[in-house]
Amino acid sequence: MEYETPLFFHVMGYAARADGDVIDMVSGNPDWEPPAALREALHEYADLEPDAFQYPPSEGMYELREEIAARRGVDVEEVVITHGAGEANYLAMARALERDSGSEIVLTDPVYSYYPGKTTMLGGTPRYVATAADGQLDPADVRDVASAETAAIVANSPNNPTGAVYPEETMRELVEIAEEYDAILISDEVYDHYDLSGNFTSALAFDSDHRIVTNAFSKSMAITGFRVGYAIFPPHLVENAKSRHMLVNVAGSRPSQYAVYHALRETGPEYYEANRDLLRERVDSFTAALDAAGAEYTRPEGSFYVMARFEGFPGTLENTERLIDEAGVAGMPGEAFGSARSDWLRFALVTPRVDKAAERLAAYFE
Amino acid sequence: MEYETPLFFHVMGYAARADGDVIDMVSGNPDWEPPAALREALHEYADLEPDAFQYPPSEGMYELREEIAARRGVDVEEVVITHGAGEANYLAMARALERDSGSEIVLTDPVYSYYPGKTTMLGGTPRYVATAADGQLDPADVRDVASAETAAIVANSPNNPTGAVYPEETMRELVEIAEEYDAILISDEVYDHYDLSGNFTSALAFDSDHRIVTNAFSKSMAITGFRVGYAIFPPHLVENAKSRHMLVNVAGSRPSQYAVYHALRETGPEYYEANRDLLRERVDSFTAALDAAGAEYTRPEGSFYVMARFEGFPGTLENTERLIDEAGVAGMPGEAFGSARSDWLRFALVTPRVDKAAERLAAYFE
Repeated sequence: MEYETPLFFHVMGYAARADGDVIDMVSGNPDWEPPAALREALHEYADLEPDAFQYPPSEGMYELREEIAARRGVDVEEVVITHGAGEANYLAMARALERDSGSEIVLTDPVYSYYPGKTTMLGGTPRYVATAADGQLDPADVRDVASAETAAIVANSPNNPTGAVYPEETMRELVEIAEEYDAILISDEVYDHYDLSGNFTSALAFDSDHRIVTNAFSKSMAITGFRVGYAIFPPHLVENAKSRHMLVNVAGSRPSQYAVYHALRETGPEYYEANRDLLRERVDSFTAALDAAGAEYTRPEGSFYVMARFEGFPGTLENTERLIDEAGVAGMPGEAFGSARSDWLRFALVTPRVDKAAERLAAYFE
Repeated sequence: MEYETPLFFHVMGYAARADGDVIDMVSGNPDWEPPAALREALHEYADLEPDAFQYPPSEGMYELREEIAARRGVDVEEVVITHGAGEANYLAMARALERDSGSEIVLTDPVYSYYPGKTTMLGGTPRYVATAADGQLDPADVRDVASAETAAIVANSPNNPTGAVYPEETMRELVEIAEEYDAILISDEVYDHYDLSGNFTSALAFDSDHRIVTNAFSKSMAITGFRVGYAIFPPHLVENAKSRHMLVNVAGSRPSQYAVYHALRETGPEYYEANRDLLRERVDSFTAALDAAGAEYTRPEGSFYVMARFEGFPGTLENTERLIDEAGVAGMPGEAFGSARSDWLRFALVTPRVDKAAERLAAYFE
């Protein structure tokens, strides 16, 4: 069995090895501060007794599951703490495919690079639905490819890479389609704290046995390296997901879970709001420079990313590397996100030098 | 698809809910101190800049891989840092099954509880080989079940649950059998620092393209909750394993890897020797009490465990719960480790109250 390897690490490696000064806009690693309470909790943890250094419960620290359940309005038994959103999506897709209710997974195009690889690794077949120019997903298009063969529909809002935030009506219809075809809507909501539009709607808003919600603290707390995420399963799907989690990873990382639990309890809304404000400023200055460079782009409604198209400069891996070497800006090739935007480049607004990068792009393409 | 869930968490839960004072000898969670350097490194990490809180390289922190490669005498490119030995074994078994060279995985009986579940979850079929009364594995018996259908042979020395340490000759023959049948020897060496016999031989002692070695710092540093392990793959098998690791977990937990890296560099042999001495003392006092109780048992050559059989008291889940309620000692039922020792109970020597537990057992069974 072969499966696709995402290009992220290749491009990151290329940028790191480049000679000149390169502004890294490759992957979604926040450059801002984690919550202060997270650092404090890690110090506290480092001095605990040895028993605090041993396996947490396989499905995650109970207090953390309780805190998440209370915030999301679900039963604690439905919450499984995972090794980031990555494992949460893996468990959700595996669970959907193991129901013997189809082997196709409906993905959008453009698509987050990990979904196709997870699908094929798990023995499923991806079916793609193109989104509109602004990244919005038309549920009617999803319905067109849905069938008895549909095991799952994967939605990601706020979206990586397009920045689209799906309105309530879209989320409602996606849940309905999943129910109609006895499939599972997997709603990856990892950018929920970076909704700049105010339109974000969680799939949890719709009571259904046919949806799994995945999320993580990686982006919301600026700790992609801690690997703490979660999935919320309908009661009848949760046990088997817990078993797979146990058989793959045994349990999550306890120092990470401990730190996240305290940060979650002790961090107020102003922390998250300040990060959104920072992102808004960066969107403004970056898109202004894209205007100056004559690029086509969509202003993101959420997440960290701007996709842009430069006339005569398709977003191939080769051109991405050229941009690193000649302009000193590292983005991701559009071809890493399916076929619909292979002419585009994706830039992650996670560097204090967004302005500088924008200047460099404007100068390079003018 | 259904797969077996290990009984550990069930028994741990039962023991935790029990009314009286229960001595926990259920799972292999060390009760001794982690290396001092590990605590220091965690403090240091908590104060680093935000970029140190983001994704480590998917295959693990480079410095940690280098340190492991140097100690194990392999090329750094063969080392993948995993989420504990659990993920390392999962990746190794997946890789063996994906080679299209058989779908059977040869396991010992008694067997470490997670192996059968991983095998069936990955679509493989377990084939069991009974070990001798002392836990030793006869390579001739492995050869008897090996065939073109054999994808992998899983060996665990020092062994959980029997405490057996396989001699060099056994390891050599297991590698030879794997080569002969184009299979992979997966050598799980997570208890290598707890060899009390001096007979431990790593599968790395034999140069071969047909062996994968898995290990972790969970036991050696008394940090089962940190989830840092590794696998050493032959060069031609490593790329695909890295892809699966990336598609399941993206990357490992960085605070854990950072702490382990510093602890590995800064901890001398006296730390590990002191833990072995502690274990030796516990083996002595526990087996003395088993003698007093008239139990049958095998004195462990390594790992944390003693398996014992009490006349007229088979090691069922029911009897395990009875022992928790009536004697205040929590072990694991033998039936959790295959069929060969279903009459036995397993006790983990990871409590300062080993003496007290031994007294209770002697009193209960006398």
